[in-house]
Amino acid sequence: MLDVIAPLVISNTTKIVLVSLDGLGGLPRPETGRSELETARLPNLSQLATEAACGLIRHVAPGITPGSGPGHLGLFGYDPLQYQVGRGVLEALGIEFELRAGDVAARGNFCTVDDTGRITDRRAGRIATELNLRLTERLRRIKLPGAEVFVESGKDYRFVLVLRAKSKSGGLSARLSETDPQQVGKPPLPVKALEPRAKTTATLVNRFVAEAKRLLADAAPANMILLRGFDQLPKLPRFPEVFGLRSAAIAAYPMYRGLARLVGMEILKTGGTFDDELATLKEHWAANDFFFLHYKDTDKAGEDGDFDAKVQALERLDRAIPEIRALGPDVLIVSGDHATPSILSGHGWQPVPVIIWSRYCGPDSVTAFTERACSAGSLGVIPAQHLMPLVMANALRLTKFGA
Amino acid sequence: MLDVIAPLVISNTTKIVLVSLDGLGGLPRPETGRSELETARLPNLSQLATEAACGLIRHVAPGITPGSGPGHLGLFGYDPLQYQVGRGVLEALGIEFELRAGDVAARGNFCTVDDTGRITDRRAGRIATELNLRLTERLRRIKLPGAEVFVESGKDYRFVLVLRAKSKSGGLSARLSETDPQQVGKPPLPVKALEPRAKTTATLVNRFVAEAKRLLADAAPANMILLRGFDQLPKLPRFPEVFGLRSAAIAAYPMYRGLARLVGMEILKTGGTFDDELATLKEHWAANDFFFLHYKDTDKAGEDGDFDAKVQALERLDRAIPEIRALGPDVLIVSGDHATPSILSGHGWQPVPVIIWSRYCGPDSVTAFTERACSAGSLGVIPAQHLMPLVMANALRLTKFGA
Repeated sequence: MLDVIAPLVISNTTKIVLVSLDGLGGLPRPETGRSELETARLPNLSQLATEAACGLIRHVAPGITPGSGPGHLGLFGYDPLQYQVGRGVLEALGIEFELRAGDVAARGNFCTVDDTGRITDRRAGRIATELNLRLTERLRRIKLPGAEVFVESGKDYRFVLVLRAKSKSGGLSARLSETDPQQVGKPPLPVKALEPRAKTTATLVNRFVAEAKRLLADAAPANMILLRGFDQLPKLPRFPEVFGLRSAAIAAYPMYRGLARLVGMEILKTGGTFDDELATLKEHWAANDFFFLHYKDTDKAGEDGDFDAKVQALERLDRAIPEIRALGPDVLIVSGDHATPSILSGHGWQPVPVIIWSRYCGPDSVTAFTERACSAGSLGVIPAQHLMPLVMANALRLTKFGA
Repeated sequence: MLDVIAPLVISNTTKIVLVSLDGLGGLPRPETGRSELETARLPNLSQLATEAACGLIRHVAPGITPGSGPGHLGLFGYDPLQYQVGRGVLEALGIEFELRAGDVAARGNFCTVDDTGRITDRRAGRIATELNLRLTERLRRIKLPGAEVFVESGKDYRFVLVLRAKSKSGGLSARLSETDPQQVGKPPLPVKALEPRAKTTATLVNRFVAEAKRLLADAAPANMILLRGFDQLPKLPRFPEVFGLRSAAIAAYPMYRGLARLVGMEILKTGGTFDDELATLKEHWAANDFFFLHYKDTDKAGEDGDFDAKVQALERLDRAIPEIRALGPDVLIVSGDHATPSILSGHGWQPVPVIIWSRYCGPDSVTAFTERACSAGSLGVIPAQHLMPLVMANALRLTKFGA
């Protein structure tokens, strides 16, 4: 689809705001039969839905629960089945490591092994982040020939390993098997090259693991490491160029800044709250055409299984809608990257409501921003990657196809 | 899609029941303007629809009327355009012949030829099955070099021919032209090889036809045979492995047992009525994760053009729903393999209503199990092969895609 869109893009001065409510979609609470969106008082979103075209977005495929990576790539116009982002890269994005093309990133766990080298705990008793910080300091001492080594702490027992070739000719490959056998009672596996040109990288990683074992010998329960999800930055068409939009991302959480950076958006500095994000939006209003505005609270409440907190998070977001509309966007989209139903306490496969508002959207009969109401909207159930072409059309930024 | 699903499959103890009402969908009777589903009293299905997500299933493509093969493959999660099952194989399945990989199966007709060898009746005056049985006994005398020959009676003038190579090196090919010219006044055609390695098989089949002609010379009106739909078992990914489900089929009719066997389901012994099927379901409840439960009466009535009989068949099925629900399935699906509108007296191309019920289905506003009501359901109009991913998601048997 991007190949079809790109040659049709034309330039104008319209402004687009995409508000992404993380984990937006929900499910009815059995006691009331009403979902989080159906329970919340959302006068501003209802008004927007009334004036807009509504529908449901499916991010990957029917029945597939999207992770944050595919969820966002879809919203940004990329088919998430065509453009896959590996675990190691997502972890690096999540701690805002400035991954470069060619870097090999892996997700790391500290783990516990017994005297015979067999794993007894794949998460090292979920050690505190503070201990993690001290142990990654040790791992940073490891030197490898021909490659820079980066070891970055994550939360609890997690870390990220990144290898960067010192010379262009010494290119690394991420086509490597994992060391994590995914069960206790077995020793960590050696890394194997899954393609011939990955052999050198496999040797480097195995050397890193051997060194790590030595350096952590006295650090039980965190006396060993596991590595998985080796990957490199995917080659994605750049969002600002494909769509011809000066594109800015405003997100308080690093993972979402990372995903926006992955497609080439400018990342605007912002504070830790949604109010900070709104202030950033106003401040940079003149300088950009497209704003990706990320709202995390809905997902957090859903992940916690806290139905009421999710309702409140929705109501807080609703109160911000007039502020956003007051800026005078030409196209305003409200949707999300995936469902996080509170009764699932995790991501869900359910399609997610979407509102597309513009002067030219063609309002349908939907008057509420809920899963059920939007399922009857004029957009129907659309793959996420169909959203951006619709947004561009509503911004009058696409010329016609065929004379 | 199966490639996307398979790596996401996780195991748990949920139970899934797929009730397939053969020829489910219908059309309004002109006198009342109401379809069979809209005429029938279906309190239990209405209740289930109210608690569930509803929609319509399209089995092959818009305007395409599915046969039983593609209709069922779609329900089982296979794209029927990608996985095609030839006529010969379907006929063999329909008489429950235990077709093996490499066997070449063809649909046979007894026919009538005149003294000059030209066909005067392609169905041999629709001879009785009893005569058919005696004549296939004669055809079984035919011996071919290097191949076993099976000739199995069907109904009336129909039979199935199967050739099986005696050695692995003597592999057969089904890339053969048909002998049936599809019109009277012409002689049967010789079989031609459609690929070089089918030459030997073509020679064998032509020899079989010549022998048959000799053996049937005195048997007018059944004094010749026609062969078409040469095919071999398709290579299908196995359903139990793809979806990680201990999978059982319960079907009183051989064709549907055959289709379930084709994808690797276990076939449970059952009696000839739907009550027998229900008893079988209860008996094997503990031993399986997934049950395909087939109900034939709706199709039979539709094929007969008997609107009232189809209404009654629907009402009988409705009365069984509480029994199925009482078993406590985690996911209950009610749909069908194709429409058989009574006013068409045959299969139809119309999409077929579907109900997906689970704790996590997200009920929509549909409160009746009819074509029109389900067309407004939250599932929309979905290709049949999207059903199984949704079913798996509702059973919480799929992990998320992308971290």
